[in-house]
Amino acid sequence: MRMYDLIIKKRNGGILSEEEIDFMVQGYTRGEIPDYQMSAMMMAVYFRGMNETETLHLTESMEHSGEVLDLSGIRGIKVDKHSTGGVGDKTSLVLTPMVAACGIPVAKMSGRGLGHTGGTIDKLESFAGFSTAISKETFIKNVNEIGIAIMGQTADLAPADKKLYALRDVTATVDNMSLIASSIMSKKLASGADAIVLDVKTGSGAFMKTQEDSFALAKEMVTLGNNAGRKTYAIVSDMDQPLGCAVGNALEVKEAIDTLNGKGPKDLVELCMTLGSYMLMAGGKAESEAEAREMLSEAVGSGRALTKLAQFIEAQGGDNRAVFDPKLLPEASIQEEIISGTEGYLAHIECAEIGMCSLLLGGGRETKESKIDLSVGLVLCKKVGDYVRRGDVLAVMHGNDRDKMEQAKRRFLAAYTFSREKVEAPSLIKGIITP
Amino acid sequence: MRMYDLIIKKRNGGILSEEEIDFMVQGYTRGEIPDYQMSAMMMAVYFRGMNETETLHLTESMEHSGEVLDLSGIRGIKVDKHSTGGVGDKTSLVLTPMVAACGIPVAKMSGRGLGHTGGTIDKLESFAGFSTAISKETFIKNVNEIGIAIMGQTADLAPADKKLYALRDVTATVDNMSLIASSIMSKKLASGADAIVLDVKTGSGAFMKTQEDSFALAKEMVTLGNNAGRKTYAIVSDMDQPLGCAVGNALEVKEAIDTLNGKGPKDLVELCMTLGSYMLMAGGKAESEAEAREMLSEAVGSGRALTKLAQFIEAQGGDNRAVFDPKLLPEASIQEEIISGTEGYLAHIECAEIGMCSLLLGGGRETKESKIDLSVGLVLCKKVGDYVRRGDVLAVMHGNDRDKMEQAKRRFLAAYTFSREKVEAPSLIKGIITP
Repeated sequence: MRMYDLIIKKRNGGILSEEEIDFMVQGYTRGEIPDYQMSAMMMAVYFRGMNETETLHLTESMEHSGEVLDLSGIRGIKVDKHSTGGVGDKTSLVLTPMVAACGIPVAKMSGRGLGHTGGTIDKLESFAGFSTAISKETFIKNVNEIGIAIMGQTADLAPADKKLYALRDVTATVDNMSLIASSIMSKKLASGADAIVLDVKTGSGAFMKTQEDSFALAKEMVTLGNNAGRKTYAIVSDMDQPLGCAVGNALEVKEAIDTLNGKGPKDLVELCMTLGSYMLMAGGKAESEAEAREMLSEAVGSGRALTKLAQFIEAQGGDNRAVFDPKLLPEASIQEEIISGTEGYLAHIECAEIGMCSLLLGGGRETKESKIDLSVGLVLCKKVGDYVRRGDVLAVMHGNDRDKMEQAKRRFLAAYTFSREKVEAPSLIKGIITP
Repeated sequence: MRMYDLIIKKRNGGILSEEEIDFMVQGYTRGEIPDYQMSAMMMAVYFRGMNETETLHLTESMEHSGEVLDLSGIRGIKVDKHSTGGVGDKTSLVLTPMVAACGIPVAKMSGRGLGHTGGTIDKLESFAGFSTAISKETFIKNVNEIGIAIMGQTADLAPADKKLYALRDVTATVDNMSLIASSIMSKKLASGADAIVLDVKTGSGAFMKTQEDSFALAKEMVTLGNNAGRKTYAIVSDMDQPLGCAVGNALEVKEAIDTLNGKGPKDLVELCMTLGSYMLMAGGKAESEAEAREMLSEAVGSGRALTKLAQFIEAQGGDNRAVFDPKLLPEASIQEEIISGTEGYLAHIECAEIGMCSLLLGGGRETKESKIDLSVGLVLCKKVGDYVRRGDVLAVMHGNDRDKMEQAKRRFLAAYTFSREKVEAPSLIKGIITP
């Protein structure tokens, strides 16, 4: 078999067989197929697409290009949640203890943030001493004993995807649904979960800007996951403005704790209830969404979900006193209100820009090597659809550097659009894709 | 400027500017742009195409990526001829002395053969001592004194094309008219001719198999040459069967000498008269094709064309006695008639296969490093449209190895198709593209 012939085949609109895709993926991972042939292939795929079967074979071949986690030592149906990434997305922090409190074992591989989106591991490190560098044995033991464990993504999970994504990133071949879906799903499959609930974000702060693209990706991934033998659901949710109010690592942890105390922002609560319901149904703990919602409400109302968070933080070396006293979390030295100079309905927030403000304050990574300041960020006081008067506080900015805060403030204000006409608050859940 | 942005632009159907194309071509030649980005770009060009202006800019940028020959020391209008390559194509050997005898200075860069097509330099080396490794000074002096000189292609002529073609060759991005045209024309432009007559072959033995593709390429190159300020014509000619009768280096030289003696095969004579006429018109030596044909006939009839060949061979170190006594050319030790076992009209010759037979006998190169046997090859006795009786001689095979000859014979016979119905001889000249 020759890569040249496979490129010709795809270029001419042909369908690649399972054997051909595996030859290409494994050969590329081993360095036997050069970058220049793979990038030509990816551009041919960009124009010709891949059908459902090809996409499945690509995903499974990438899944098996490295280690595949064996979670058979964990009792019960392991349900994983994955978000395509957004601004202020602290869902995992809230959702994980909620579903764990309802009996779903959560064995999660998580990543760090890059660019305008934050990462769960960074946020969790707001608890002094917390670490995701745990052994596989501890990981499995903790899930069995407490119900939750989170590990950092190891380098050997789907290495084909890692290498291929880096190539696509510099050759303008990222934007293809099959390739995006297979990239995400190959890692999810290698992470060993039995069922997967996907949170596909849509809007100005998301990877997918339009609902059309977001639904297409959601459908592609649901088909893919189910074809690969894992029960998979996708929720398409709004990312045209930050989720909840807090943006920034420790600030988001605080908001997550508030939410587990029953005092969370409406959109965050609703998203956790929706995702959580599908996780309970996928894990066989509830028959209907209504039943699942009742169970989740009880877990929060009884305080069991918050206790679960505290147990989990402690089990991974973190100081869990902050769970009950959030003042112990990292705090910025300066807090400044951003005042509105305009009056009207808040019509639009350029969402990725709010993520960039947090990054400017020191709360995000520009490159993989950047150190981050866990204490900085923003807490929004107004959301799209709210009526704002001149002099109202739009947000509170938390920072440690006046110059950076001045820059971030200008950028923040430029991201807001007001309207004289009444503006409806956007709906949070755009749709649910079931198998 | 970033290559990434240029890939996106072309991928999305945009038009690259002169500056952008130059950035890409020169950066790639210098090794600043990696292969994997260029191959993605080439695949995007395959799908999106390049318009007339982009193709011109690509060609001129590649032309100027290395040395551009300065032929200003040669008096008169330099007219170059280029063939896209075929089987039995000894046109240059006949045409060059013909037009030189009519006063057109011929300053030609030529290549060696590869695969099933032969190269002019290989054929000329049938004259003992002949060399194309001459200095630029000798090259120019010879053209001024004798009217003809042929140099081997130097490595530094359009190096961008050389590097890019090698990449396209392994990434399935050769088949695009703009890229093929710019590859050929960038070298022609860098060779310094004032006018260019192109022989675009069409059929089973040509790079372009269909007339549609051949005309498209011919038009693309004529437009390109004229946009680049060189008067350019193209003849589309048949390559569905070998040109003339001889296939193989020394055998073709002998046929070329026969033709200059007025005893050439009809198709070869006609092609040389057509191409020669356009060369004389492009060089300002004739006003009409009729006038040009008269001049060319006189050059052959008077023996001046043959004398010109002898002068040229001598000037480049060759033993020119063979021009007047072809028995002195390399001769194979075995000559074997291939007898027809079938009766009927010769309907089709799988032309590339005849080239492969010559290669099998040792007369061609499988790789650039192969040594070739100048004496071997085939002389066809029947051409498409001829009626063949059982026992007729189809061809005489010249070889030095019985095993290879046996293999070649089987392959030869498999390349012939006969028909009971009368078959018309194919027309040689399919069309002429003028500016």
